[in-house]
Order: sequence, then C-alpha cells, then structure tokens
Amino acid sequence: MSYEPTPDDKFSFGLWTVGWQGRDPFGEATRPALDPVESVNRLADLGAWGVTFHDDDLIPFGSSATEREGHIKRFREALDATGITVPMVTTNLFTHPVFKDGAFTANDRDVRRYALRKTLRNIDLAAELGAETFVAWGGREGAESGGAKDVRAALDRFKEGFDLLADYVVEQGYDLRFALEPKPNEPRGDILLPTVGHALAFIERLERPELFGVNPEVGHEQMAGLNFPHGIAQALWAGKLFHIDLNGQNGIKYDQDLRFGAGDLRSAFWLVDLLETAGYQGPRHFDFKPPRTEDFDGVWASAAGCMRNYLILRERAATFRADPAVQEALRAARLDQLATPTLEPGETAATLLADRSAFEEFDVDAAAARGMAFEALDQLAMDHLLGVRG
Amino acid sequence: MSYEPTPDDKFSFGLWTVGWQGRDPFGEATRPALDPVESVNRLADLGAWGVTFHDDDLIPFGSSATEREGHIKRFREALDATGITVPMVTTNLFTHPVFKDGAFTANDRDVRRYALRKTLRNIDLAAELGAETFVAWGGREGAESGGAKDVRAALDRFKEGFDLLADYVVEQGYDLRFALEPKPNEPRGDILLPTVGHALAFIERLERPELFGVNPEVGHEQMAGLNFPHGIAQALWAGKLFHIDLNGQNGIKYDQDLRFGAGDLRSAFWLVDLLETAGYQGPRHFDFKPPRTEDFDGVWASAAGCMRNYLILRERAATFRADPAVQEALRAARLDQLATPTLEPGETAATLLADRSAFEEFDVDAAAARGMAFEALDQLAMDHLLGVRG
Amino acid sequence: MSYEPTPDDKFSFGLWTVGWQGRDPFGEATRPALDPVESVNRLADLGAWGVTFHDDDLIPFGSSATEREGHIKRFREALDATGITVPMVTTNLFTHPVFKDGAFTANDRDVRRYALRKTLRNIDLAAELGAETFVAWGGREGAESGGAKDVRAALDRFKEGFDLLADYVVEQGYDLRFALEPKPNEPRGDILLPTVGHALAFIERLERPELFGVNPEVGHEQMAGLNFPHGIAQALWAGKLFHIDLNGQNGIKYDQDLRFGAGDLRSAFWLVDLLETAGYQGPRHFDFKPPRTEDFDGVWASAAGCMRNYLILRERAATFRADPAVQEALRAARLDQLATPTLEPGETAATLLADRSAFEEFDVDAAAARGMAFEALDQLAMDHLLGVRG
Amino acid sequence: MSYEPTPDDKFSFGLWTVGWQGRDPFGEATRPALDPVESVNRLADLGAWGVTFHDDDLIPFGSSATEREGHIKRFREALDATGITVPMVTTNLFTHPVFKDGAFTANDRDVRRYALRKTLRNIDLAAELGAETFVAWGGREGAESGGAKDVRAALDRFKEGFDLLADYVVEQGYDLRFALEPKPNEPRGDILLPTVGHALAFIERLERPELFGVNPEVGHEQMAGLNFPHGIAQALWAGKLFHIDLNGQNGIKYDQDLRFGAGDLRSAFWLVDLLETAGYQGPRHFDFKPPRTEDFDGVWASAAGCMRNYLILRERAATFRADPAVQEALRAARLDQLATPTLEPGETAATLLADRSAFEEFDVDAAAARGMAFEALDQLAMDHLLGVRG
Repeated sequence: MSYEPTPDDKFSFGLWTVGWQGRDPFGEATRPALDPVESVNRLADLGAWGVTFHDDDLIPFGSSATEREGHIKRFREALDATGITVPMVTTNLFTHPVFKDGAFTANDRDVRRYALRKTLRNIDLAAELGAETFVAWGGREGAESGGAKDVRAALDRFKEGFDLLADYVVEQGYDLRFALEPKPNEPRGDILLPTVGHALAFIERLERPELFGVNPEVGHEQMAGLNFPHGIAQALWAGKLFHIDLNGQNGIKYDQDLRFGAGDLRSAFWLVDLLETAGYQGPRHFDFKPPRTEDFDGVWASAAGCMRNYLILRERAATFRADPAVQEALRAARLDQLATPTLEPGETAATLLADRSAFEEFDVDAAAARGMAFEALDQLAMDHLLGVRG
Repeated sequence: MSYEPTPDDKFSFGLWTVGWQGRDPFGEATRPALDPVESVNRLADLGAWGVTFHDDDLIPFGSSATEREGHIKRFREALDATGITVPMVTTNLFTHPVFKDGAFTANDRDVRRYALRKTLRNIDLAAELGAETFVAWGGREGAESGGAKDVRAALDRFKEGFDLLADYVVEQGYDLRFALEPKPNEPRGDILLPTVGHALAFIERLERPELFGVNPEVGHEQMAGLNFPHGIAQALWAGKLFHIDLNGQNGIKYDQDLRFGAGDLRSAFWLVDLLETAGYQGPRHFDFKPPRTEDFDGVWASAAGCMRNYLILRERAATFRADPAVQEALRAARLDQLATPTLEPGETAATLLADRSAFEEFDVDAAAARGMAFEALDQLAMDHLLGVRG
Repeated sequence: MSYEPTPDDKFSFGLWTVGWQGRDPFGEATRPALDPVESVNRLADLGAWGVTFHDDDLIPFGSSATEREGHIKRFREALDATGITVPMVTTNLFTHPVFKDGAFTANDRDVRRYALRKTLRNIDLAAELGAETFVAWGGREGAESGGAKDVRAALDRFKEGFDLLADYVVEQGYDLRFALEPKPNEPRGDILLPTVGHALAFIERLERPELFGVNPEVGHEQMAGLNFPHGIAQALWAGKLFHIDLNGQNGIKYDQDLRFGAGDLRSAFWLVDLLETAGYQGPRHFDFKPPRTEDFDGVWASAAGCMRNYLILRERAATFRADPAVQEALRAARLDQLATPTLEPGETAATLLADRSAFEEFDVDAAAARGMAFEALDQLAMDHLLGVRG
Repeated sequence: MSYEPTPDDKFSFGLWTVGWQGRDPFGEATRPALDPVESVNRLADLGAWGVTFHDDDLIPFGSSATEREGHIKRFREALDATGITVPMVTTNLFTHPVFKDGAFTANDRDVRRYALRKTLRNIDLAAELGAETFVAWGGREGAESGGAKDVRAALDRFKEGFDLLADYVVEQGYDLRFALEPKPNEPRGDILLPTVGHALAFIERLERPELFGVNPEVGHEQMAGLNFPHGIAQALWAGKLFHIDLNGQNGIKYDQDLRFGAGDLRSAFWLVDLLETAGYQGPRHFDFKPPRTEDFDGVWASAAGCMRNYLILRERAATFRADPAVQEALRAARLDQLATPTLEPGETAATLLADRSAFEEFDVDAAAARGMAFEALDQLAMDHLLGVRG
C-alpha cells in the first residue's frame, strides 16, 4: 500500500492549521506567518483536496475593502491554479479582544450585533467561493464564573443569531448549511453547547433546524472524556454530521490539536471505520496544530502524517470488516441481533405482555450466563489495526 | 435561620441511597440491609417529603407475586402513616448479570424484551403509587470496546423501547412522564447518552417527545468535567427538566455520590440559585451514597446534611439576589443587556446590514476596552455564599 | 471581621499576575502592559507584603546592561517607598522560542547552557534583592511525543543543572533556597516532574537536597485531579514546603489561574486550615491571572479577592478548630488514635506477633461495625465554612 | 512472527485477575469463582511464567489453620506440576469491612495493628513460596472528606508500618523487597501516595529505603492523566522499578483494568520500548480484569491478548530502534545531544560564566529557529507501530 492521498480522499485543511505560528499561553511565536497562497500550493502538492479558513486567516482583521479584494483575488488564483476547493468557511469571533465575553451571546448587545455583521459578511464570501458548509465555533460563548452569564438568556441570544443567519442564507438562495462546533472549555472556563449532544439538542429549537448540523472535533469531545466515535454515531443517527474536524488529543487536558492518529489511536481506528461504513460523504477536515517545536519542514511532515494515518486506518478498517473471522466474531457477539428490532412487526405493549417467553418463562440465569465474546472480537480488531493478520 | 427541612421543600430520597450497604469494587458491604419501611420512617422524621425506588429496592429480584404484594402493602402502610409521597419510580436494569451488556440496547434480543417487560411491570407500580415521573437510567447501555456495540443500531433499539413505553403510558391513561438520566461511564466503559445534551437530543427523535425529559445528576455531568448549572439551564431552556438528582462529586473520577454540598460547593450554590429562580417545581431528589465508613448514625447524618446544605444555599442565593449591591454589579456586568434581544423588533438581516452603527461605524477598540466587571460580581457571590455580607 | 490584609499576613503577588495582559491560545491581549512600579504601588495599597517576578517581567528580554540597571533601580525605589519585599524570584525559561523544547532539559546542548547562564544571572539579582526563595518551574521541560525525549537522560540533565546552581549559591554565600514547581502539562503535552510527589522524589537524587524544596500550585495539582491539601501535607511531612502558589482551578482542564477561593472552595478551606495549623511560615503567594474579561478595575478587584478569601477561610478554619463540638467530633472519628503510634514504645515485629489481642483474639467483625463518624465531622466543617455556627 | 508467549517472557498474572467474578458497583457477579489451581493450569497452558496473589485470593478470609495449609498445599502442587513460579505476593487490606478506613493508616489503632499482623503472616508465606517482591497497595489508605484524615499523622503511621515490615524481613533473612503501588483514588475519594512520584518520595523517608521500590500500574497513573512511560522512566532513573502492573485504561475515569494494549495503545508502545531498552529484568505482570460481559472463554481470550499485545509491541519497538531511518531521525531531533552532559568535564559555574559563547555571544534567535523534527520522528514511530514499514 502506498498511503498517498489524492483529491478523491477529500482531505481538507484549515489555513490556520499549517499556518499556526506557535503562540501559546506561555510562549511567543516560533514560526513566521505563512502566506495563504503558499499554504494552498503546499497542501496541493501533498495531495489535499480542500482548504478552509476563518475570515481573518485570509483577510487580516481591519483590512480595507481594497485590501480585502486583493487578498481574495490572490487566493482564488491559487485555488484555480491548484484545483484546491473551499468546502467550508468559518468566522473568527474569538481572537480580537472585542469578543472577550462572547460574540452572539456577549453580554454587550452592540458586540452581538457586530458579531452578526462580521458573520453575514463572511457568509457572502463563503457562498462566493462555493463553500457548502459554514462552521460556527462559539469559542468565547461562555463564562468563568457563575453570575457572569445567564445561560438561558444566552441560549435565547444564540438562537436569535442563528435564526437570523439561516433566514439570510435562505433569502440569498445560498446553498450553504451551518455546522455547529462544540467544545467544553478553553478559552472560556465553560463554553456553551459543550458537547456534540448539547449542540444537537440546541439545533432542534432553531427555526430552521434542517439547515443546521454539527462539526465535531476529535479533541474537543475527548477533552470531556467522551468516546468520540460514539458521539459521531449519534450525530449520524440524527442525520446531523455535516462536517468533521480530525486531530489528536491525549485525554482530558488543554486543547492539543495533535496531528490525526496521535493521541488515542484505537479510537481513531473506530472513527475511520465508522465514517467509511456509515456513508459519510463530507470532507475529512484536519484541524490540528503542528507543535511549536517544529519548523516548516515539521509543519508539512505533520500535515502529511494526518492524511497518511487516515489512509492507513482506512485500509485496516476495511480489512477488519472483510475478514471472515471478524464476521464470525461479530455474530458471536450478537451484533446481528442488535440490528434486529426488539419488537415483532406491529407488536405493541399488549402483545409483548402476552408473550410469556419474554418474561414469565424467560430463563434469566441462563441468559445471564452467556458470554458476550467481546474480548475475542476486540483482539481481532487490535490484530487488524496493528497489521498482524493477513 | 434554622435550616430545618419541611415537606414543602419537596426533598426526596431514593431507598437505595440511605439503604446502600457500602459494597464497592474493592470491598464487601459494611452495613446491613435497611428495611424500606425503616427508611420511610427515618426520612419522614428528618423532614423529607418523598421516597423513590427501583423495583428491586422494594421487591427483591425474584420475589413471588405474593411476596411482591406483601412488600408493596407494608410500604404503602408506611407511606400512609408518615405522609411520605412517591414522586418517582425507576427500574433496576443493571444489577442482575442478565443486564451485563445492557437492557434496551443489549445485543441479545431476548434480554431487550425481558428488560421492556420488567419496565412495563414497574410502570404499573409507579402509576399505582401515584408517581409523576418515571426515571430511566441506562447504566448498562454501552460498551468497553469499539466493535462490541453498533451505536446507531443501539440508538434504534433505545428509541424502539422508549416509544413502546410511551405508547403504553398513553394507552393506560397514566399521568406519568419519563426522565432520562445521562451518565458518561461507569459501570460501562462508555455509556450511551453520556450527557444531558445527548439525552435532550435523543428525545427529539422519539415519537412522543413531549413525554420525555431529563433527570440530570450532579456527579454524572461533573464526571465529564461539565458545568452542572449550565447543563441544567439548557434543560430548563428546552422545557425538559423533569426531575433532578442532587449529590456531590470531586471532579473527574469514579462516581462518588457524596452528600449534596460536598464536592464543588460553588457550583452547588449556582445550581440552587438557578433552580429557585427558574421556577423549577419538581422534587429536590438526593441520589447520594453515605460513605461506607459510616454506620447508620452516619447514614442519617449524611441524609440530614443533604437537606441542610440545600437550605443554607437557598438562603444564601436569595440574599445574593436581593442585595442592591449585587443588582448593581449585575448591571455593571451587563446582564440586563444579555436579557435584551440582539435584534430590534421585526429586524431582519437586511435592516441589520443597513445599520452602519453595528459595523462600519462601530468602534471595536472602544468596545474591546470595556471591562466586564465579572470578578467584582463573583466576589460578591463568594461573600454571600460564605455569609460575610449583611 | 474586616478581612483587610496587612503585611503581617505575608501576602505576595507575581508581577506577571496582575500584569497579565490576557493573551490566550485563541485571543490577543485585552489589557495594556502594566508598569512594575505601578504594580508595586497598587499592591502595597491593597495590603500586600511582597512582590515576585521572573527576570523578564522586570527587565524585558534583550535589554542592554544599562537598561537593565535602570529597570532594577526604579523597581528598588518603589520597593523602598512602599516597604514591599521581594521574597521570591524566578526565571522565565519558557516564553522565548529558544526554549520551545525546554531549558535545562532541551535536546540542544547550547540551549541548556544558555538557560543555565540566564538563571545564574537571575540568581545574582535574587540575592541582591534579598529574596530567600528561588522558584524553578520547568514549564517547557517535556514532550508531546514519545520519541522526542529520553526521560532518563533528561533527568540526568535536570540534576546536572540544579547541582550546578546549588553549588553556585553555596559558593557565593547566598542565603537562597530553591523551590521546584511541578505541573503535569501545558504548555508541553507532558511535563517532567508532573506532581509534587515527582518533584519531592527528584530532589532526593540531587547533590544538595537540603537546598531544594517545592513550590506547589493549587491549580497544577488539581489539573491531575489530585487532592491539593494532601500533596501539601506530604511536602510538609518531608520538610519541603518552601513556598506555595495559591490560585483557583475548576477541575481537570487547561490551567485557569483563577483568583484564590474560586474553583474548589472546600479544598481551599482545608488548605488554609493546614497551612495555619502546620506552622508554615513562608509567603502566601498568589499566582493567578485576572480573567481577560476584566479591565484594570477588575484586575485589582481580583487581587483583593485573593487576599480577602484567604482571610475569610483563615477565620473559618480557626473557628472550626476551636469549636468544642468539632473537637468532640474529631475524637469520635478517632483522629486522636491516628496521632498515636501503632506500636508500643520499643515494640518490634516479635512483640507484635506475640500480642494475641492484635490478631488471634481481635474481633474483626466488631471492629468492622464501628462507624467512623466522618459525615458528621464533615458537616460541621461545612457549617463553619459557611458561617452558620456560632 | 508467532507472538506466542513462553516462560522466558516472564509474563505473570494475579489470581484475582482471571478470577475476577465481575462484581462492580452496580452489578452482581457474572462468573462463578475460579479455583486457583485451575487458574495456574490454564495460565501455564497459555504460556505464562508466574502467578501472584493476595493472601485472601488463595486462602479465603477466615480460613482455619488447617484449611490454610490445605489451600497452600494444593496450590504448591499445581505450581510444581506446571513449573509456574510465584514472583510476587501481596496482601488484601481492602476487601473486608474492617479496613473501610484504611489498614496501616486507619484511624483505629487496633485496625492498624491487625493489618500489620495480617501482612506479617503473608510475608512468611511469600518467602516460603520463593517470591522476590512483596507488593503493598494501600487502596483504603485515604479519605473522602478533609477532616477525616490528618495526612501528616497518617504518613507517620505509614512509615511506622513499613519500617516494621522491613525490619522483619531483614531479621528473618528473607530475600524479599517491597514494591509500593500508587493509585490516586477509588475506592477512597483520595488515596495517600497517589502517584509514582509520591511513592518514590515517601520511600526516601523510610529507615531502609533500599528495600523499597514501586509497582506502578498503567491505569493508576493514567487515572491522574499522567504519562505512564514518563513515570516509569523516573522510577527507573531512581533505581526503583521493582515490579510493574500492565493493563489498559481509557483516560481519566474509574479504574478499568482493561487487558494490556487496550486503552492508550501508543503509550503502551513507548512503555514496552522503555522496558525492553532500559534493562528492566522483572516480571511483566498483568493486573487486569476481563470485562464482566465475558464468560470463561472470554477470560482466557483476554489473558492471552495481554501477552500477545506485549509481544507484538516488543517486536515493533525493536524494529523501530533498529531502523536506520529512525536512528537518523533521532539524531535530527538531537537525542544524542540530550545524552551528552550539559557541562564540560569538571566545569563549574565559574567556567560556564566565563564561556561567552554560552550567553553573551549566543545567537538566541538562530537557535530558536531550529526545528526539532519531532513530528517526522513520531510518524516513523507510528509507521512502525502499525507495521507499515519494512
């Protein structure tokens, strides 16, 4: 196997990922700024399919209209020259100090209005560049102390903002859907909509829920100790996996944004297995930060590693599913029974209550004694992951 | 202040809480079994209003029909004698080894059918005893390894089960609503519907979502590092806080079930503040475990402490809200602005785009320079919590 | 009670705390730089006793010798004018990109030598200003990936560095001791000497262990989920609590550096109780960051809150210890027995083996049945903390 | 490669691992008790080299002297028949309710004396069976609330106990060393000596530190979010890795005791790499719990998986180290420089201060610009782990 990426793999990267300069809470930048055009060219060389960005990644905050047009023009030319697409765009509502208490849910009403305007402008750009997904990460929507935020009022404001944006997209006829990106904390002590679950629930209270899905990030869910593939499965089950951010994280701590595959490798295996078997058609988007120990050689090595690891895991997951021994092990673990409805067709509580085999005559101890055969199955998965079978 | 509970406070306890014998993963029971009737009597003496139970707490697993009736009769007599109510009932779908791989989402279909039957029987009992809420904690619905559970199929089975139960409640004319209780892990490596958010989202895919809400537990959300009052606020915002489990937890670790107030005290203050100001009318239900170091004197001291701490915090929260200095600090922190819609009445994207003060003429640096005054507000809250103001 | 701090309380603050400009991983500074002289003056006004600093806090990195002298001179004048002391100095070995892979344990040997030189120069300054403690936080000594650091070799280099510094202090006749500050992670994926325990153990392998102790920080230990008072107790037990960093943290997540009292309030109560009863004579040093939502009013409110909360907790702990009911509860919980040696004076294994009452005739079940009365004791502590007794 | 274990691999298992019946905080046993003789036989068949046990695993608590002899005799016969060794023995000081508040540090003095007696008896048995290591896990030495334990007094009692045991071993002439096993929490809210670091530090205050080392367990350190190979490296550096408990854990949560390899697989790779290259000669001891979903087939599959995964990782680590490209990458990352002393032979602070190239003439910006090449190195490690190179 070559594990060389091609555009068909739909790998995309944020400009802010390879372009991260390495400024962290305790240290200054270790790398110079990277020209977005350079990023496009290098990512194309590596086999990527798309690039994504926050408005301010492409057009520095405070640029004049003329400067703005210049930045967009150069970028478009690089896209055209390389064939790189822009599948997703997002808005930076967190870097400038004006957003220190939030954007759509800032206590200051004028900040909220400003944030909506910044987003509306960026939606136009997203549509102009042909993006299909507009990601919204509310990184500053939250609080460090209990009195500072009335969460119910903040959710009202959050809904108000997204309802407006959705109306706008419909009015403009844009072919654009929103993907909310949850995160439990950092940079705020606690962030609103902290997990995939909270975001999915919130969406159901919007006026146009059909336009909203989620953009889960590996590390964000793992910062809450949650099983990432489980969260993705629930998002898929709800029809709401609109986009995904792939990276690595070593457990519950600060947001690490390691390259994909680093961190919890077994979880990454099950994630790729799920994405590839569940019919997910969207981008495989890497939202990682090359460690600040690295120079640009390290940056590109890290970006290449994200894709390579995905491809290795994709191959391993496919081999796992194709192995007759695995299929037998899945049956031994009764995954086939889980796929079968619990009730007979048309069955109601009344008929279930009438089925004495289900309760009165059910041999509970015999059922309890049946082993689930999960360890043998999991070892087969390990063998496939490590490439020691076939 | 006396901090003596009365039935008006709506404090309730599970039979399994004061009755916990102290068996843990590394140790045998340290206390003998407690007669449910004794629990009812003692809790009434302490000022509690309600008791709750799993079927097996009241009627030992495997009891004959006659034994069952006897247990229920004695229990009812104790309720009648003390005036204690049964506001909530729940089903034990986790202790018996037959549930080792789950109940409604067990891979084994016959186990799933058995679990539904066990629950249906218990719903009848709940209705018979006048309970308004039926809690469902799917403690065994989960997995330790990635191949052992197809989460999307499991969610199908979960929905199938709850849809059946809801139909049954409607058919029987029971005045009973379901409250799903999320938990991230333990006893399973990962549990389905791990947080309040995931449960709220799941409910929206049920056939009768109006019959379903959540029963969040302090420690369960904190096991994922989440801000408990934030989760409760989102549940209230969604109209879904049907019940609540109060206890204490010292951060991300095994499920501690400490008495209410122990663990994160500041979070408990904000929780009580929220419940008391948001119009929550349901039970204040303590789901805690008196530590196994305690004898029965310690058990009752611990139960009394749960209620006492709630009452102290309720008083402190009320004093906080009533303090003119706090009200001024809330304005200084612009909580009043957060309560104001971001948009003018009838405002659309078009009118917002036409408002130059919102963007083109917005002085972003001046806005950024405004302090939020959260630290002063939080210190006022600390002063009230600690009782050093007026 | 007034809770007004005085110099006798020995409260100290780092220049980098009130001077933090609010730059975080996702956002720019929200506050302008603060002149160290202004910080000294304001802290003196608030009742602080000491200020501390990293070399670069006082003397910007890259200053010429003349500039350096100027900075020191102005600072000394402010100290003299206010009576503020400098009890501790520390070195910045983490902000400049040259330290991206560490300082004393950087893979690059020349970086290690440079780091030692930067530290030696700063030790001279510490001695010159009369500091008694020299803190060493190895924030960049660590790794993000397994092959990047040979930890045993790194510990050799760490020891080599500290042995040199200790020799230097002795040779120069400085009255200065070192306090190592542990932290589990952030800004590195994993940091060497991640907890108080690891630092204490490392010290024992140095050539002059008597010159080395620890400087534990509340939030750092809590980032590993550890009980902070327990760690402090072990440091005290080992005679190694040379300094302490007080702040607040809401559990396992990024380093929050909240004001003291915020975060785990009950733990803060037990910490103050321990420091005040164990004879700790060192500074009460606040290493916190006023949230970036705050302007300078908020900064000073936050600093004042640190001291106020310490004083409230000190009063509450004293009242707790003085309460006869508490003393009785401590006896009921057999704390007096814990203070008594297990063995009789001069007792050996032989005599213990001969004591049949200790084993052969020990009534294990009767002993097991004794309740520990911890819940009643803990509720008394809660009552004192909340000020509802006496 | 066959990955079939042989006694030369020094794989050992606790009787309590394969013999775990699956009782957890929320569920009853799912498997019957396993005869220790059966365990010995089955483990021998699987290729294990040793078995270990708590006294009560082999000899049920409360057995008479005669019964005790019978249990030991049968066990010895099984050992003799299979060639299985007993490299380690440990004492159960946590299951019986008498230990609910601890053993060597229980508040009750008579419980402490009883615990020492139980341990002394077990030390005799350990010596009799030829064990070289005596593990001490103080699982109940801790507290749930701040007033319940005076940690400094408890450490005095802990030291008193271990000093007595060490004296006894020396007096008896036993060739036995102690290995302390740290754990941060569970079953106590906080356990004394919570990490490898705390245990190493404690040992230095014992009277015979040379007889004491540590027995770190993968999951225990990971429950505190710590990097396990880093902790092992510090233990090795201190000359204190006397024994090791291998298993798997999915991050910060309850103690999972998964089979080795499950959980953090990349960490397991670096652990095996370290053990195999650092000259660790002790047992590779698996302290895991086959999930309670499993029947005995699953138990043995799980035990076999532990060994298989170790062997796969051992092979992969060896291939990694032997790869010339890896050796080049290690040089590119300057691991060779880390292995070189920072100082010249005989160098002092004075000579370092005289070296202008180290500071005055050091080009800090040029040094800062050097990339560390860690990402390329880590991807090579990933490739070797996954078996996609050579």
